[in-house]
Amino acid sequence: MIEYIHTLASTAREALPQLTRCQTGQKIAALYNAGQVIRNSIGDILAANAVDMQAAKEKNISAALLDRLMLNEARVEAIAQGLWTVADQPDPVGKVLATWYRPNGLTFERVAVPLGVVGVIYESRPNVTTDAAAITLMSGNAVILRSGSESIHSARALYTCLQAGLDHADLHPGCIQLVEHTDRACVGAMLGAQGLIDIIIPRGGKSLVARVQAEARVPVIAHLDGICHTYVDKSANLEMARKIILNAKMRRTGICGATETLLIDRNAPKEYARQLISDLMSAGCEVRVDPDLKDLHPNTVLAQDADWSTEYLAAIISVKYVDGVVGAVEHIARYSSQHTDAIIADDQIVAASFLKEVNSAIVMHNASTQFADGGEFGFGAEIGISTNRLPPRGPVGAEQLVTYKYVVRGNGTVRA
Amino acid sequence: MIEYIHTLASTAREALPQLTRCQTGQKIAALYNAGQVIRNSIGDILAANAVDMQAAKEKNISAALLDRLMLNEARVEAIAQGLWTVADQPDPVGKVLATWYRPNGLTFERVAVPLGVVGVIYESRPNVTTDAAAITLMSGNAVILRSGSESIHSARALYTCLQAGLDHADLHPGCIQLVEHTDRACVGAMLGAQGLIDIIIPRGGKSLVARVQAEARVPVIAHLDGICHTYVDKSANLEMARKIILNAKMRRTGICGATETLLIDRNAPKEYARQLISDLMSAGCEVRVDPDLKDLHPNTVLAQDADWSTEYLAAIISVKYVDGVVGAVEHIARYSSQHTDAIIADDQIVAASFLKEVNSAIVMHNASTQFADGGEFGFGAEIGISTNRLPPRGPVGAEQLVTYKYVVRGNGTVRA
Repeated sequence: MIEYIHTLASTAREALPQLTRCQTGQKIAALYNAGQVIRNSIGDILAANAVDMQAAKEKNISAALLDRLMLNEARVEAIAQGLWTVADQPDPVGKVLATWYRPNGLTFERVAVPLGVVGVIYESRPNVTTDAAAITLMSGNAVILRSGSESIHSARALYTCLQAGLDHADLHPGCIQLVEHTDRACVGAMLGAQGLIDIIIPRGGKSLVARVQAEARVPVIAHLDGICHTYVDKSANLEMARKIILNAKMRRTGICGATETLLIDRNAPKEYARQLISDLMSAGCEVRVDPDLKDLHPNTVLAQDADWSTEYLAAIISVKYVDGVVGAVEHIARYSSQHTDAIIADDQIVAASFLKEVNSAIVMHNASTQFADGGEFGFGAEIGISTNRLPPRGPVGAEQLVTYKYVVRGNGTVRA
Repeated sequence: MIEYIHTLASTAREALPQLTRCQTGQKIAALYNAGQVIRNSIGDILAANAVDMQAAKEKNISAALLDRLMLNEARVEAIAQGLWTVADQPDPVGKVLATWYRPNGLTFERVAVPLGVVGVIYESRPNVTTDAAAITLMSGNAVILRSGSESIHSARALYTCLQAGLDHADLHPGCIQLVEHTDRACVGAMLGAQGLIDIIIPRGGKSLVARVQAEARVPVIAHLDGICHTYVDKSANLEMARKIILNAKMRRTGICGATETLLIDRNAPKEYARQLISDLMSAGCEVRVDPDLKDLHPNTVLAQDADWSTEYLAAIISVKYVDGVVGAVEHIARYSSQHTDAIIADDQIVAASFLKEVNSAIVMHNASTQFADGGEFGFGAEIGISTNRLPPRGPVGAEQLVTYKYVVRGNGTVRA
């Protein structure tokens, strides 16, 4: 499998020079055409998906996983639209990020350039095949897609359409490649392909991300946990807080930007905590509270230490009293996974200190943490969210999947 | 040693919140004061350095290493001036890198923030102690300095002055820490301190960098090799090419930005290659050529395959004929260490294709590769040059030693 992956990576590297030189229009044409081919191939795609669904049912996999795997007409149409959304974004490659001059006559530019070869390792969602391909192509990177074995037939059907798009636009087929083998050794081979693959992006559950982060000898863009906090300050407007907390926790509980811990200012009126907890319970959320909050509502559960470090991804929330914004910042520094943390406050000075002192990839004021998403940021689509300290951080769309180089121009300039 | 390093890292993390909140003026005051204390402590510093020099001489270390280790009045003054140069740079922390709005009323900012705790592992140059401390402090990072054992007394003397600067500016002493033990196990402990140290920067010879890159479980900013190329196109002005090549190779042969391979357009007049090789030989450079160039000058040596991948760091150069800019780009793609590569050409279209297609951290047109240096880029000082694909790439000064976060502001905004 190592040899097979190295062959794919070498082919990807062969595609890079042409991809570096190509016109923006070629990338757009490839994605538009692939979307049209997907529309026209809906029968083949649904048939391939039916094979995956049948095999999955025979393995008795969970209903949630089956739902992720399942394609229908609407979802195939959404996949095609997704390609066009990425194609409509500005081309990030070649953008001049900074320009300056030096007294000796040298001019300097910092210019956005592709990362190189990107490996994407994912699980059962068929749309990741096309989303990842679109984002990497638009950012000038060659991609090696490693679909989970459960969705391999669906992935192959979509991959055929992507290749048609590349061919239509005279782009090298090595720009987008699918790992045809479902052997798990392929993942290990990708993680060890230093010098051949420039970056690995895992998309899937925590066990996949943890394995990739532990084993990779190639840099990884990922987040392991989304332990997101929302802090309600005593200066918060209670009605605004109620609306935001319900949305941040309950709109969709299974996404990484869902709030997992509610921090409430101990100096706020008791009514705040009582109302917020009561709203959550009415909405069907299990509420785990610290002892200071236990007497506010009979049906709450006492939180254990582990609760503050738990990403529930379910209708469960932990709630804690903290001493104002300082206490909130301290709690977040200790327990946050540096994904997304929010403050609800009318006091602008308090809000400013929260936004400055919380070091997460995304900090929010008077908004729902569920906005932690590349689409909501206006990036067209995202390939994931990074909680790395180094860039790219936060939602990663085509514009973030680049690096830069310096272009220095002289006129026979030599160093003294 | 692991416990000791973890204690240092925990102290550094304790310093971070205050460092995140502090005023730019505090950082400037700390660096200015440390520089003054260094001036006033010159006797102590030179005495400490004499201890290091004595021990080094007893170990019979090389003259080059002794020279790197040695301090005198002028060098101590340069160390103080170095702190002030960094203090005079704009504060990179808090800089708003981008701002945009979404139709739902959310406003977005991408804001530069410190990386966190930086570990710097270096060898015998005493000035790295102060340069690294200044750059990391200015960029809002806490630093753990691991000096080589040969320069530990000099490092301690300078470190005392840095601490005086922090104290003067009411900054936490954990902002700058020196590893007091010279045990090599400390390096291993730093490389494995995931979650405690955010980034490791090795500064020193190839064996140090290779060890750090191989063992680190923490992201590393570094370059292993500086195999820099200069390509002379047939459209080059020969007089300009002669001036640049001599400077790029011979100004200082031991720096990473020195040109190691000269590529000459096969379509250029024979006179070009003859003159350039003759200039280099007259300047005392050994010239290793490919067979096509062997008959141009009697005293050249035939290059072996290994020469194209060798960073000489000496008065030796390899020279090759290539088929125009396409051949140059191909050779560089194969052999360059992605550090710095240059073209000399009057033809702007040829130059543009070279600058676009060569993927190194720094690409240059009509200038000497010896400008690959943070000071020459206007960054005040550099802590190193990165050939990583991901940012930061190229010279790393205070402005590059930051990451970013997103600040999102709403007005009770919830996701549909």
